[in-house]
Amino acid sequence: MIKVAVLGATGYTGVELIRLLHGHPEAEILFLSSESHAGTRFSDVHPQFRGCVEQKLDRLQIELIPEWVDVVFCALPHGQSMTVVPALLGRGFKVIDLSADFRLKQPSLYREWYDLDHPFAELLSTAVYGLPEINRDEIKNAELIANPGCYPTSILLALAPLLVESLVDLKTIIIDAKSGVSGAGRSPKQAFHFPECTENFKAYRVAGHQHIPEIEQELGRLAGEKLRVTFTPHLVPMVRGILSTIYLELHQVTQEDVYSCYHRFYTGQPFVRVIEPPDLPETRLVRGSNYCDLAVRLDKRTDRVIVIAAIDNLVKGASGQAVQNMNILFSIPEITGLGQPAYL
Amino acid sequence: MIKVAVLGATGYTGVELIRLLHGHPEAEILFLSSESHAGTRFSDVHPQFRGCVEQKLDRLQIELIPEWVDVVFCALPHGQSMTVVPALLGRGFKVIDLSADFRLKQPSLYREWYDLDHPFAELLSTAVYGLPEINRDEIKNAELIANPGCYPTSILLALAPLLVESLVDLKTIIIDAKSGVSGAGRSPKQAFHFPECTENFKAYRVAGHQHIPEIEQELGRLAGEKLRVTFTPHLVPMVRGILSTIYLELHQVTQEDVYSCYHRFYTGQPFVRVIEPPDLPETRLVRGSNYCDLAVRLDKRTDRVIVIAAIDNLVKGASGQAVQNMNILFSIPEITGLGQPAYL
Amino acid sequence: MIKVAVLGATGYTGVELIRLLHGHPEAEILFLSSESHAGTRFSDVHPQFRGCVEQKLDRLQIELIPEWVDVVFCALPHGQSMTVVPALLGRGFKVIDLSADFRLKQPSLYREWYDLDHPFAELLSTAVYGLPEINRDEIKNAELIANPGCYPTSILLALAPLLVESLVDLKTIIIDAKSGVSGAGRSPKQAFHFPECTENFKAYRVAGHQHIPEIEQELGRLAGEKLRVTFTPHLVPMVRGILSTIYLELHQVTQEDVYSCYHRFYTGQPFVRVIEPPDLPETRLVRGSNYCDLAVRLDKRTDRVIVIAAIDNLVKGASGQAVQNMNILFSIPEITGLGQPAYL
Amino acid sequence: MIKVAVLGATGYTGVELIRLLHGHPEAEILFLSSESHAGTRFSDVHPQFRGCVEQKLDRLQIELIPEWVDVVFCALPHGQSMTVVPALLGRGFKVIDLSADFRLKQPSLYREWYDLDHPFAELLSTAVYGLPEINRDEIKNAELIANPGCYPTSILLALAPLLVESLVDLKTIIIDAKSGVSGAGRSPKQAFHFPECTENFKAYRVAGHQHIPEIEQELGRLAGEKLRVTFTPHLVPMVRGILSTIYLELHQVTQEDVYSCYHRFYTGQPFVRVIEPPDLPETRLVRGSNYCDLAVRLDKRTDRVIVIAAIDNLVKGASGQAVQNMNILFSIPEITGLGQPAYL
Repeated sequence: MIKVAVLGATGYTGVELIRLLHGHPEAEILFLSSESHAGTRFSDVHPQFRGCVEQKLDRLQIELIPEWVDVVFCALPHGQSMTVVPALLGRGFKVIDLSADFRLKQPSLYREWYDLDHPFAELLSTAVYGLPEINRDEIKNAELIANPGCYPTSILLALAPLLVESLVDLKTIIIDAKSGVSGAGRSPKQAFHFPECTENFKAYRVAGHQHIPEIEQELGRLAGEKLRVTFTPHLVPMVRGILSTIYLELHQVTQEDVYSCYHRFYTGQPFVRVIEPPDLPETRLVRGSNYCDLAVRLDKRTDRVIVIAAIDNLVKGASGQAVQNMNILFSIPEITGLGQPAYL
Repeated sequence: MIKVAVLGATGYTGVELIRLLHGHPEAEILFLSSESHAGTRFSDVHPQFRGCVEQKLDRLQIELIPEWVDVVFCALPHGQSMTVVPALLGRGFKVIDLSADFRLKQPSLYREWYDLDHPFAELLSTAVYGLPEINRDEIKNAELIANPGCYPTSILLALAPLLVESLVDLKTIIIDAKSGVSGAGRSPKQAFHFPECTENFKAYRVAGHQHIPEIEQELGRLAGEKLRVTFTPHLVPMVRGILSTIYLELHQVTQEDVYSCYHRFYTGQPFVRVIEPPDLPETRLVRGSNYCDLAVRLDKRTDRVIVIAAIDNLVKGASGQAVQNMNILFSIPEITGLGQPAYL
Repeated sequence: MIKVAVLGATGYTGVELIRLLHGHPEAEILFLSSESHAGTRFSDVHPQFRGCVEQKLDRLQIELIPEWVDVVFCALPHGQSMTVVPALLGRGFKVIDLSADFRLKQPSLYREWYDLDHPFAELLSTAVYGLPEINRDEIKNAELIANPGCYPTSILLALAPLLVESLVDLKTIIIDAKSGVSGAGRSPKQAFHFPECTENFKAYRVAGHQHIPEIEQELGRLAGEKLRVTFTPHLVPMVRGILSTIYLELHQVTQEDVYSCYHRFYTGQPFVRVIEPPDLPETRLVRGSNYCDLAVRLDKRTDRVIVIAAIDNLVKGASGQAVQNMNILFSIPEITGLGQPAYL
Repeated sequence: MIKVAVLGATGYTGVELIRLLHGHPEAEILFLSSESHAGTRFSDVHPQFRGCVEQKLDRLQIELIPEWVDVVFCALPHGQSMTVVPALLGRGFKVIDLSADFRLKQPSLYREWYDLDHPFAELLSTAVYGLPEINRDEIKNAELIANPGCYPTSILLALAPLLVESLVDLKTIIIDAKSGVSGAGRSPKQAFHFPECTENFKAYRVAGHQHIPEIEQELGRLAGEKLRVTFTPHLVPMVRGILSTIYLELHQVTQEDVYSCYHRFYTGQPFVRVIEPPDLPETRLVRGSNYCDLAVRLDKRTDRVIVIAAIDNLVKGASGQAVQNMNILFSIPEITGLGQPAYL
């Protein structure tokens, strides 16, 4: 059994992680922390876990984590993981960090996009960006895995096949992304108050979302050169799901070429499904599952390519991917505990 | 491995059953039928199962079911199970029927409430009503299990403790029940067309719902005498969930008496959670899970008792309960494949 | 033109009132107050009013209200109207108060149910309970109108015909009510955070909701004697609407008797629609309108009567009724500005 | 009073039109047609209109329309208006057609995109495209107004200011549009069945939607030259609203230049609101209203411009715009009957 600790257990990614770990046949939860609810039981805060996970929530004191823990998941807010990860590594734990704190390689980007000075910038180069479909080999031996962001996961999986085969005109990438509300976290705010959030659709942080540097860094790595993208996130009145619609121009290929490029790239990848025409991805078809569904269309009238990717932001976009990374790290079958299809 | 067949695989209860069986470590799906989609793959109709359940859908011909199948789940429309169950039993299969076709003991009730003449009324007395918390022992040895209806499940679990201890004034039971839309099935209709169904709440079949005879039959069995109830179902703009609010009068007891009655009755039952005040059941806390959450309140000002029960209509109210029955039938731990808590 | 002021303009009842007054051909908005947003424009807080209502929000200082104002609507939180209404009356304004602060006749009930000592209890006897279908004549000459609560409006209109004809066994009234989320106000809270509120249904404040004394007081007035009711409110995942399902026993009458009782009572009432069988009320059919839709059913099997009432909690349950009261007070046709049917 | 007839009264655009005309102080509804419900009352089909619009529904026989009717609104399905409009014009009625049947100027496009041979192609050149902000003068004297499509309305209003000032690199226009479900009409279908439509987001008709030729024709007219666009529509789990996010490149301008271009163009237009940064359009802020809200952003990192437009697809995107056209046609103030802001 893999012995795990979860820091920041009561936020949505923490809760989803515990849901998945609870159903994972090889994982055992030994330690849960929550600053706001320390002293109560996990099921007091999230009563759906009554009878399932009734463990006590501890304060986030690293010395309280039992030494026989194998891996620590950090589901803490951005800016907090930074401060605790070095001590976790110091105690010899493997760390899978679900925040953005170790995803960017250039420390200056934290200042620019997150308004933070990174206190342990030297760790940024050793952290492995935990997107298994791209970096599986590095993940196997990582000490610290930076689990990708939800939007970046959908975008990187959508574009990787075309980028590694150098088919894309890199100046043309435009990403129009849409997310369910759970992506905004668990704290009540006016914009997520039911009467003002349901039956509403809007864009937000147009051309300024903090996932942009992560997207550009990782797309650039795949392309082998720097690039810039236009990225517009939108809020959909639903709990779960991201759908990214991506526009780009290619160096002269046909729809068939494009599909075979995707098939080549994703053959054998258990969690990426390339959807054949005329079908298209829908967020409900991946809800609660670790799948990423992809489709590609050539708009012959304008010679543009449209790639569409759907994931569940809390699963493949966060906690499911974290479990997938854990499975790789501990050399158990990658789909262990992640086999469930979407629910209605 | 328990080898299973599912007849009527593409309706909502069929789909939910296949989702649960797919994740069940002791079950193997050998045969799926669908009249409307025979010849295609299950995942063609329900693409969330791509890569998970890609089995072919066969026509409903009983001779096509492999003889090594152990149990057949009938998720057929009411009125169709009637016609095939005898042949299934004849071939020696155990049968778990999710329709209403074998729930009522008196054949005349089928004529009165379902407008059907039951062609195999002699089977009604041998069918076991599959509510494990009440009838676990009979289920163990049943050939034919009549899986309870969604509304009746919530109501019977809510009232059983009080009825078996004869605490209830039987003339006073009023049930105000509310269901999510998946309870109405998968066929598109005007009333379930998104723009007319979302942001709407209504009662339907007031004092005339076909679950009434089932509720009265089983409540009467628990009470040891015939009784009648007022039952009003309502439609809630959500996919899953039933919440039943039940009003009744008791023969002089206190709130504490009532709670201890519930605790006595449900101790050791893995899927019933008695919620302590001030907490109350919510459908989201059982969504996707096999739990039934219960709370009881004494309205001291009017001397009435209010019992509130929440279940997921597709799980504990249908397919989860069917799997629970299968587990009992094959003597494996009752929670096998049913351990997941509600998802966000 | 009727010159109006609205105190507490930025809460949901304030906003709905301003929406209705903006479309009212005989009303002119002269003054808006908001404690939290004083100094900004109304349309800064509620941008849907850009180009429509761009008036400045003032602090709630009574001397700031222009003396030529005819009527002041108080859409303040419970407990705040109490403190300002006497001064408003002192300045000679008519007052329509949308809070609960002047609805109850017995001061002790404020202590019991609202945990407040009423500082101006002597006004309680002069305030007119503003339910036009019952109290139209008193409303015409009132100085202070206590606008009814949303739940009480639906319940009183549902039961008034039976009570005034003394048909009801008064000990048997059970009210199972369901409300949309706008009834809970505009402040973000965990329970109304979109991911935890959508796709959820629950009861709350079982047997302890603060509308109980108001319901009992007014039902008792109609019945001519004191009575007690069981009242259970529920939360529906939709923005607007209340549906109350009410159970009671009658002194021997038929379904036809009951319907003719309703028709007698509501003939000529412009905002109450008695729905003929087999149709039933639905909240969507009154959404955004000032209608109350009613249906009655006799459950012959149990000899109970079921009355179902649907209103829009923000219109007939609050701001629409306030405008209706204003129309009566100023002797203009009662439907002025209130003629719109429900929107999709 | 303007005397109106509505053909196709029971579909969503018909219903919305009747809602708006019912509240319009200068309009009187004389004739309603419905093929599927002829002989019943309008309020039998749409019970929210009980007590408001109880007129009988007639068959669509043109000779039944009273001769004193001034204007006929055709809210018929695409392909049906074609066949009746000439006869309506022949009887001397003004016609406002809400279908696509007279929007395209080139008959061949009907074959290509709608799979229809236009039987009265000679009328296409005389029909006026009814977008008041662009074509107000022609509308004043039109006999036949082709009311714009919902997506095209949002897109044309979003781009007109930049196109008429020739600021746009015409090869760069990409439109990512999102619509509520009422845009798909009133007929129940699997994709709009509540349990499969709520909590879901998807693209549809990627690069092949039938609004493309209308968008390109009208954008081309504004630009003074032919152009092609990439257009991807998406379905949002909400009833009403369209939000279009449009990407393009400009010939060297600043954010300030762009905003002043919009202000120049839209000054004095009552239904277009240019939203100042940092605010952005949201569909809820135009729900039920005839407004189009617009915002523009310069993505300095990629030198692209992002224009965002929000409308209510049933109001400014269909029936509200039709009423606006009627107001212009009959020389009454353009906002008559259209002044209401969005409702919660």
